[in-house]
Amino acid sequence: MRHKVYILVILTYPLMKAIIVKPPNPGVEITEINENEANNYGKVKIRTLYNGICGTDREIVNGKLTLSNLPKGKNFLILGHEAIGVVEEPCCGFSQGDLVMPVNRRGCGVCRNCLIGRPDFCETGQFVEAGIHGIDGFMREEWYDDPRYLVRIPKTLEDIGILAQPLADIEKSIEEILNIQKRVPVWSCDDGTLNCRKALIIGTGPIGILFTLVLRTTGLEVWMANRREPTEIEQTFIEETNTNYFNSSNGYDKLKESVGKFDLIIDATGADAGIIKQVIPLLGRNGVLGLFGFPISGSFSMDFNAIQDAIHANKVIVGLVNGQKPHFQQALVHLASWKTLYPKSSRLLITRTVSINDEKEVLKVLKEKEHGEIKIKIVWE
Amino acid sequence: MRHKVYILVILTYPLMKAIIVKPPNPGVEITEINENEANNYGKVKIRTLYNGICGTDREIVNGKLTLSNLPKGKNFLILGHEAIGVVEEPCCGFSQGDLVMPVNRRGCGVCRNCLIGRPDFCETGQFVEAGIHGIDGFMREEWYDDPRYLVRIPKTLEDIGILAQPLADIEKSIEEILNIQKRVPVWSCDDGTLNCRKALIIGTGPIGILFTLVLRTTGLEVWMANRREPTEIEQTFIEETNTNYFNSSNGYDKLKESVGKFDLIIDATGADAGIIKQVIPLLGRNGVLGLFGFPISGSFSMDFNAIQDAIHANKVIVGLVNGQKPHFQQALVHLASWKTLYPKSSRLLITRTVSINDEKEVLKVLKEKEHGEIKIKIVWE
Amino acid sequence: MRHKVYILVILTYPLMKAIIVKPPNPGVEITEINENEANNYGKVKIRTLYNGICGTDREIVNGKLTLSNLPKGKNFLILGHEAIGVVEEPCCGFSQGDLVMPVNRRGCGVCRNCLIGRPDFCETGQFVEAGIHGIDGFMREEWYDDPRYLVRIPKTLEDIGILAQPLADIEKSIEEILNIQKRVPVWSCDDGTLNCRKALIIGTGPIGILFTLVLRTTGLEVWMANRREPTEIEQTFIEETNTNYFNSSNGYDKLKESVGKFDLIIDATGADAGIIKQVIPLLGRNGVLGLFGFPISGSFSMDFNAIQDAIHANKVIVGLVNGQKPHFQQALVHLASWKTLYPKSSRLLITRTVSINDEKEVLKVLKEKEHGEIKIKIVWE
Amino acid sequence: MRHKVYILVILTYPLMKAIIVKPPNPGVEITEINENEANNYGKVKIRTLYNGICGTDREIVNGKLTLSNLPKGKNFLILGHEAIGVVEEPCCGFSQGDLVMPVNRRGCGVCRNCLIGRPDFCETGQFVEAGIHGIDGFMREEWYDDPRYLVRIPKTLEDIGILAQPLADIEKSIEEILNIQKRVPVWSCDDGTLNCRKALIIGTGPIGILFTLVLRTTGLEVWMANRREPTEIEQTFIEETNTNYFNSSNGYDKLKESVGKFDLIIDATGADAGIIKQVIPLLGRNGVLGLFGFPISGSFSMDFNAIQDAIHANKVIVGLVNGQKPHFQQALVHLASWKTLYPKSSRLLITRTVSINDEKEVLKVLKEKEHGEIKIKIVWE
Repeated sequence: MRHKVYILVILTYPLMKAIIVKPPNPGVEITEINENEANNYGKVKIRTLYNGICGTDREIVNGKLTLSNLPKGKNFLILGHEAIGVVEEPCCGFSQGDLVMPVNRRGCGVCRNCLIGRPDFCETGQFVEAGIHGIDGFMREEWYDDPRYLVRIPKTLEDIGILAQPLADIEKSIEEILNIQKRVPVWSCDDGTLNCRKALIIGTGPIGILFTLVLRTTGLEVWMANRREPTEIEQTFIEETNTNYFNSSNGYDKLKESVGKFDLIIDATGADAGIIKQVIPLLGRNGVLGLFGFPISGSFSMDFNAIQDAIHANKVIVGLVNGQKPHFQQALVHLASWKTLYPKSSRLLITRTVSINDEKEVLKVLKEKEHGEIKIKIVWE
Repeated sequence: MRHKVYILVILTYPLMKAIIVKPPNPGVEITEINENEANNYGKVKIRTLYNGICGTDREIVNGKLTLSNLPKGKNFLILGHEAIGVVEEPCCGFSQGDLVMPVNRRGCGVCRNCLIGRPDFCETGQFVEAGIHGIDGFMREEWYDDPRYLVRIPKTLEDIGILAQPLADIEKSIEEILNIQKRVPVWSCDDGTLNCRKALIIGTGPIGILFTLVLRTTGLEVWMANRREPTEIEQTFIEETNTNYFNSSNGYDKLKESVGKFDLIIDATGADAGIIKQVIPLLGRNGVLGLFGFPISGSFSMDFNAIQDAIHANKVIVGLVNGQKPHFQQALVHLASWKTLYPKSSRLLITRTVSINDEKEVLKVLKEKEHGEIKIKIVWE
Repeated sequence: MRHKVYILVILTYPLMKAIIVKPPNPGVEITEINENEANNYGKVKIRTLYNGICGTDREIVNGKLTLSNLPKGKNFLILGHEAIGVVEEPCCGFSQGDLVMPVNRRGCGVCRNCLIGRPDFCETGQFVEAGIHGIDGFMREEWYDDPRYLVRIPKTLEDIGILAQPLADIEKSIEEILNIQKRVPVWSCDDGTLNCRKALIIGTGPIGILFTLVLRTTGLEVWMANRREPTEIEQTFIEETNTNYFNSSNGYDKLKESVGKFDLIIDATGADAGIIKQVIPLLGRNGVLGLFGFPISGSFSMDFNAIQDAIHANKVIVGLVNGQKPHFQQALVHLASWKTLYPKSSRLLITRTVSINDEKEVLKVLKEKEHGEIKIKIVWE
Repeated sequence: MRHKVYILVILTYPLMKAIIVKPPNPGVEITEINENEANNYGKVKIRTLYNGICGTDREIVNGKLTLSNLPKGKNFLILGHEAIGVVEEPCCGFSQGDLVMPVNRRGCGVCRNCLIGRPDFCETGQFVEAGIHGIDGFMREEWYDDPRYLVRIPKTLEDIGILAQPLADIEKSIEEILNIQKRVPVWSCDDGTLNCRKALIIGTGPIGILFTLVLRTTGLEVWMANRREPTEIEQTFIEETNTNYFNSSNGYDKLKESVGKFDLIIDATGADAGIIKQVIPLLGRNGVLGLFGFPISGSFSMDFNAIQDAIHANKVIVGLVNGQKPHFQQALVHLASWKTLYPKSSRLLITRTVSINDEKEVLKVLKEKEHGEIKIKIVWE
């Protein structure tokens, strides 16, 4: 008779598969956890279909992301901030079968920006980020969420929709830059568009490619730069999107000579901060230098002449971070449009998929980036 | 010898087929004109591939558009303000084979808005509109244009790209409305999106459908209204875009009861102005009533109580007109995205095509609108 | 023994003089009330120095303001929404002796605009207005308030600072109009200012005069209009502020002939709504018609031609209401500047003062407007 | 007979007194020049009443301003970019006796911002600045100008109006910063004002004082910092404007401890660029660091941790320069308001006047700054 009781307990808290980490320690594990050990956020029951893997996940796995921490009162963190899931039971405006993506950063609950759904501009810094710090992520069989944090994914974007999460950060960044440029009485060109504006993207990784796609869609002329010739994949993006490429292995002087100055420069490298000093001389009048990739070493400096020039010419340097729900939605519109505008490129955005059941492979791709990778997707099946 | 001279003259000014009108007189003709009798605007040589037909064309053909007039010094006007052509010779940044669409309204050359490529806000009213008033349109074999007025059409949008012209007007309108709403300290919802905002579109013709598609893509909840049940085609749009429909044959009281007030109401009817008075009571606090369709009869009035309410609740009424080159470009991004987001709807946008060689049919579609027509395209071949 | 108890009660809830009304009934009374019968809003103890009287007070007194009502659970309302008081005890960032003015409209506590201090754009309509509806006003010896609703009044503005309350509504209105005009790519003039923009103010009462002063300070050319020649006082304002005047007793045709169209028209009459129809033809391209004065009769209409014109020319009609704390602060800066820029005019802004002890006179000025009155101030002493 | 001819020539080109320099050489001279040797810009004849002297003048006089150069085809430059003059003959909308101030920077005539009167955002860099580079300044008896470049000075501001020129640069800077902050969904406080926003001004010279006055008028809390205790004059400003003061002789750590981080930091020193690095750690989330004073030595650097922080917290660094006509007009409104709001401070803004006839003294004040100087005015009489 007592055995029966034990069985009931097991039914009440079923096990589910999850990918867990224990920051600040390195390491990652695919394991079964009790469902009641995982954070949940609302009433909409969601079964995970896909997770995207990004550099932040790998930094956590490798014990390098100092800001990563455990949820309150827990001794592990479920990894994963990029996810698409399917709604399992009708609830709160959602139907069974709807595809949804969670917004990963969630507000502090106190400041005015968080209260209006914009924790990307949180004033207290007390926000949490699912799968990164403070609350569990989405590399698990299922979770419950609040409609406020759920973005609908059209079925026709099931294939590449996972990119809406990283792309949202870029949408927010470009929205912010365009807002900053409203300080210039006229920043548009003589035909009312932004077609005469020149952008330089430093770095040709996934971030550099997504910035290029959004800026080309917005109408700007774009130059991508890296310290080597473009790979074959990069070449496809460049040709299809009519983007320019510059090999910066010998510095940027030749680019300045041939093209002149740029209205917008984005650091999308996430490498040594020294690169910033190199590109500052390429920033034109009323221009914006956007810092997006987290530099991991080095420093950047401006001497008094460069500062005088920045003053004389109304230049701006701005730190760019985190997209929120409106940016996820804008990202989906862009992804949808690229299937038509840049069909080859859009097919290259998902490098490959890995089944959650192929645990060895999942752990491998969580530990290190593959050559030429744009986005690797874990498929739950 | 003299005969040779005559032949030379004919070679120098070859004939081309064109559709011409003679406003303010009714009538339309497909004829051959000397190329030197047609207005040209620049150095890019373009061969016409497609023309779209819209209500304005038919008003000119039927002698009802009082603002239509002849180009200076001419006794006919080439019709057509919706066109896609192909560049015939490399020039000015374009390659042979590039698809382009002309921007039809061109600035006064004097006011500050026209000088920066925004004749949609021309201050003098001295702008011209190709194929409507002041300069020839594009229903002709070929023309020469200035790159400033040419929008690149992606090859993957050759099929529905012709809609970028009418859609540009709607893109401008919604951009203007969103700019006006920046007067409200917070107009976004508690998740930072516009998903909680409710729009009511009066009229289910091509304009109403395009407004609906853009607003749904922007995230608003939309209600379309007409004085009957939706047609099968409308039903397809409604279902695919997750739009609501209201049969207003008995007025709008029931809509107000069931849904409440709207944040945005668009008059897309172009019918009797009396409709405006009917929908004013449905406009909510801080709301905008956008007037887009030209009313052709009647008047609209507000009594002192309605005016007091408009004052108490910060309401706006705004006239909406004309998109420019940036709006054409935005229209193309939306058209591209709809192929993925709303594939069935996007296939219904072009009702049918008519060959320029089928002159009888061309003249017929230029004279009257077909039942259920969204856009009819003339194909030059 | 019981007598002693009565004395204690009197000490605990001392009496204070207050001006009370009982909407929707007409009537007004100067009486002594128990302090505990009056609404209070915070910890800052304030002794009233001055009250301003405005048309809304008189409408309440005369039983004509239908939206006026009693505070919850009370059978009278303390009148007065314009007040300057002196802080009696140091508290919450204020020192004893600081001059303060209360913000009269207070938010619904629910909507996003109210949560960020902007109940002028309240979405629920559930705000209250001290002395008008929902909560007691400030025509009383003293009250307690929350720093959030208190505006500091510089000592050098003790004389005319009471105008900051009505002026705040106008500051908000002009801020909103300037925000709306940001929809126009370039609305500034060829010297970057607004000096070429023409504004027409219909009505020369206190509201018309304050609109004129703010718009002149902002740089616009201004025309004031009324159906008669200007009074001597108006003449002083007109001359000192370099404003134009138009006698509209024979309609507005002559003004249109001589001046042309206006970029901004403000209805500051609060009379019959028919005036609006008269001035619509004077509104120029991209122009704004601002409705500020509450019309008390009549209606306004536009026929389909006028609507077509509004569409063709991007015209806006907007209801304007209520300034909040940032507008009170802007009002004080303007009042301060006018002492230097328009010294004669600023001395005419306070028509006269009435002592609270002269009860007969107080009741008289609360019942009817004096000829040529701009602002009458009650002085508590 | 020939003598008569000579006399005529002398009458046609009369002599006038002017202060001239010969950049890039050091030196300054008060001399008589032929009127036809001086640049003029229009039809409005203006007699100089006052000139202000600023640091830029002294840099030119001392041969240190490398960007200073001679007008085309001339071998001297008339100094002076701060001036008030009186209109001598009615012309072009001005009456005889009107006081006017010239806008010193004049556009390139080519770029869109210059075409709309905003050469502060000139895209070509081909603008000129009267008295600094390209065209003559206003330290001369009289000149002719174009109404487009003339700002009306109210008679009641004849005393301190000369400050409108330097103040315009600060008005533009703060306008630009407030525009940049519109990228933050809500940057206002919970009462809708900016009263909770904290600004730190580094440097207590004329620029620091003017920034403080404008920011206090705009509602922000302000801290001024310098590496010493405040002077008596500074103390007056601080007390009257209710500003805070910080002695930074031992660095900024104590300020960070006691106050926390700042929403806005302005470098108004014009000293060594190293100061920027010191204050970066005091910049809060969503904050702006404005660079205004031209550093004359040193450099500023951020290591990768500081850059990561700037990214995480949406920080902006912006170069601030040059006000145009709308900013001159805003400066006049502020100067007018300060006479009422900060009467003691406004009286201290003009340190002293020097007569143009006291040539020795004029040359002295042109060569070196006096201790405690805010603004020295040359009076033409």
